[in-house]
Amino acid sequence: MTQALPDFERMWADLAPIGRSAASGGYFRQPWAAADQELRAWFAEQAAARGLGLTEDAFGNLVAWCGASGEPGAQRAEGEPTTGRAVLTGSHLDSVLDGGAFDGPLGIVSAFAALDLLRARGLRPARPLAIAAFAEEEGSRFGRACLGSRLAVGAADWSEVAGLTDDRGVRLGDLVPGGPAEPWLAEIGCYLELHVEQGRALVDLGAPVGVAAGIWPHGRWRFDVTGRADHAGTTRMEDRADPMLTYAMTALAANKQARLAGQRATFGRLEVSPNGTNAVPGHLRAWLDARADNESDLHAMVAGIQTQAEARAKRDGTRVEVTAESVSGAVSFDEPLARRVAGAVAGGDRARVRRLPVLPTQAGHDAGILQAAGVSSAMLFVRNPTGISHAPEEFAPMADCLAGVEALADALAELLA
Amino acid sequence: MTQALPDFERMWADLAPIGRSAASGGYFRQPWAAADQELRAWFAEQAAARGLGLTEDAFGNLVAWCGASGEPGAQRAEGEPTTGRAVLTGSHLDSVLDGGAFDGPLGIVSAFAALDLLRARGLRPARPLAIAAFAEEEGSRFGRACLGSRLAVGAADWSEVAGLTDDRGVRLGDLVPGGPAEPWLAEIGCYLELHVEQGRALVDLGAPVGVAAGIWPHGRWRFDVTGRADHAGTTRMEDRADPMLTYAMTALAANKQARLAGQRATFGRLEVSPNGTNAVPGHLRAWLDARADNESDLHAMVAGIQTQAEARAKRDGTRVEVTAESVSGAVSFDEPLARRVAGAVAGGDRARVRRLPVLPTQAGHDAGILQAAGVSSAMLFVRNPTGISHAPEEFAPMADCLAGVEALADALAELLA
Repeated sequence: MTQALPDFERMWADLAPIGRSAASGGYFRQPWAAADQELRAWFAEQAAARGLGLTEDAFGNLVAWCGASGEPGAQRAEGEPTTGRAVLTGSHLDSVLDGGAFDGPLGIVSAFAALDLLRARGLRPARPLAIAAFAEEEGSRFGRACLGSRLAVGAADWSEVAGLTDDRGVRLGDLVPGGPAEPWLAEIGCYLELHVEQGRALVDLGAPVGVAAGIWPHGRWRFDVTGRADHAGTTRMEDRADPMLTYAMTALAANKQARLAGQRATFGRLEVSPNGTNAVPGHLRAWLDARADNESDLHAMVAGIQTQAEARAKRDGTRVEVTAESVSGAVSFDEPLARRVAGAVAGGDRARVRRLPVLPTQAGHDAGILQAAGVSSAMLFVRNPTGISHAPEEFAPMADCLAGVEALADALAELLA
Repeated sequence: MTQALPDFERMWADLAPIGRSAASGGYFRQPWAAADQELRAWFAEQAAARGLGLTEDAFGNLVAWCGASGEPGAQRAEGEPTTGRAVLTGSHLDSVLDGGAFDGPLGIVSAFAALDLLRARGLRPARPLAIAAFAEEEGSRFGRACLGSRLAVGAADWSEVAGLTDDRGVRLGDLVPGGPAEPWLAEIGCYLELHVEQGRALVDLGAPVGVAAGIWPHGRWRFDVTGRADHAGTTRMEDRADPMLTYAMTALAANKQARLAGQRATFGRLEVSPNGTNAVPGHLRAWLDARADNESDLHAMVAGIQTQAEARAKRDGTRVEVTAESVSGAVSFDEPLARRVAGAVAGGDRARVRRLPVLPTQAGHDAGILQAAGVSSAMLFVRNPTGISHAPEEFAPMADCLAGVEALADALAELLA
């Protein structure tokens, strides 16, 4: 482990300043923007420094390949029979707006560090290893979470998303070439993603590392509320059709429903038009992020919120339209794979395997997209003392991060054998 | 009138495409942006075509001067004893975001058309006439309504506002030189502003033109709600400190208070941070526009809204801070001036004077700022069939606009005598 340690810390120090806001301490790493380009260049350097071959698919997903020999400098030869045998690890480099340092990059830094550790141990893997940086995992630029992995596996249709624009009007189709689903995924036998935990389960259990059980079904729904723009001074309250009121009631109703049911419903993103202090808005667009522990509860909750929005709209003289933008069904990760990962992490010790936490998560991940598309997937979580994520306070202590690298290396050694 | 008519329509046609959104049919004329620069160039052309001298003060307010003789080509001579004698008319060229064509430009087009009409009638005025286009009347760029007139009269302090930034980070101080209050206002004896009505009072009274009585006290208050940014999936509802909830309840409370009291309270502008679908917001900034028919009711209403916001914040674990950004006291326009204007508009006919509507307004205007600063001011309103303003639907029929030009010309003839 001693050999991997300095490199892990150096990689972490390299990434620390990229896209960081001095004001908040948070990260702004929207895909393909300046900070992300720097992160991508860093990823290419890390691959080159380890003699890995780098590919970028039509959707901006980066993959560093370590050939069957696993030796430094070994490249995947054209036509080499890797199909379905490669072990994939990695995560994503992009962040939410004003997000934390760990969500995404921890999985990539740990992947490179785990490879270093395996090489230091003298491992000669029987299978190829690939390290991926999936594009637009957070959906912070084009509004679709896990967009890179969805496109790669064919779960999203390029013709449907090529025309998506960011808030400055830039089209996704002008940033990446796009096209049909990616053939490189056929070479992957399984995917293991390490990620910072985004809750406090590992803290409560006193464990630095855990294995994922599955992902709650979740999705994003766009609420378009249309009223009538008007003068904020001269228009009597009773003559207005103000979409802000419809929205405000909807946001409160969503929170209450989710709270009572132990589920999640969040309105965190809004666009108000014209957004002027002295104008009653004419239109308001709000995005609902909803998650539940099963699909029927999820859809019942969203339907309930929509019903309450429509009832209030009738009172306000406004109109509500709800559009599902991306909905992911429940994901159960591959159980035999998770058992192998857990066994390797516990060093084959059954008592330790039993003590290793197995956690559900409410967050979407590229591993969930790959699992749903038929690629056996598993995840490792690293303890987060506050449980805070998607915020500057997101954190994992160095000792836990290093325990994560070791766990990942142990699991990869088992899977590459 | 026949001579003025073609010119009025031509001016109106010149302005129609500038800053217009093909999508909504509304206008985006933020001060000093491209559309506003075009409008300012148009203003200069209109002044030049009529032989008027043009000045621009340190705050971007444009004034076209028609010397004491009132003849085409006559310029105000340096040192000419005009102090306190000039009659000012005009309005503003900027619009709210996605606003209407009439709010502002109608007063300026009518001013040039009224001058044409007076010249066609052969009037030889005894006093100078000045036509003003005040800058940033709507406050759509820097958030302060009537900013140009406030600065000109010294009601706003340059050192306090020079550092204001627009939503792209451009400083007001980088657009105009700024400085102390403007000496040119000392030359003004009175101000008469024509404006499209922003309610339905004239429609209900069946009159194309009315005279303003006064302006309700009104202002803008910024509500900063601070919570804790977090992951929208993994953070349990009960563990959140979500400023969106505090805001939503505040917006509903403000609406209810104003509705029950016959006053106005509007939240039409919002900034959410980080504004990501899968992030609980960490901070929300909302602007309250509040107006009431007297100052004590206004301040009681705002205090009541703040109290409700703070009570909800305690429940949500958030923090609310309220900042008054610009507050204007009640304005009663100059009564003797309004009587002279009304008399002239009615052609001296007492029965017609009695039938001429005298209206209060809930909208702020530069005329209110000048009146409050000691410059005798009055306003004429032109009928708006729907009462809608600050929206693409804002409208005044051509016949009413021409009745407005005639009323303005009659009033100016009286004031210039």
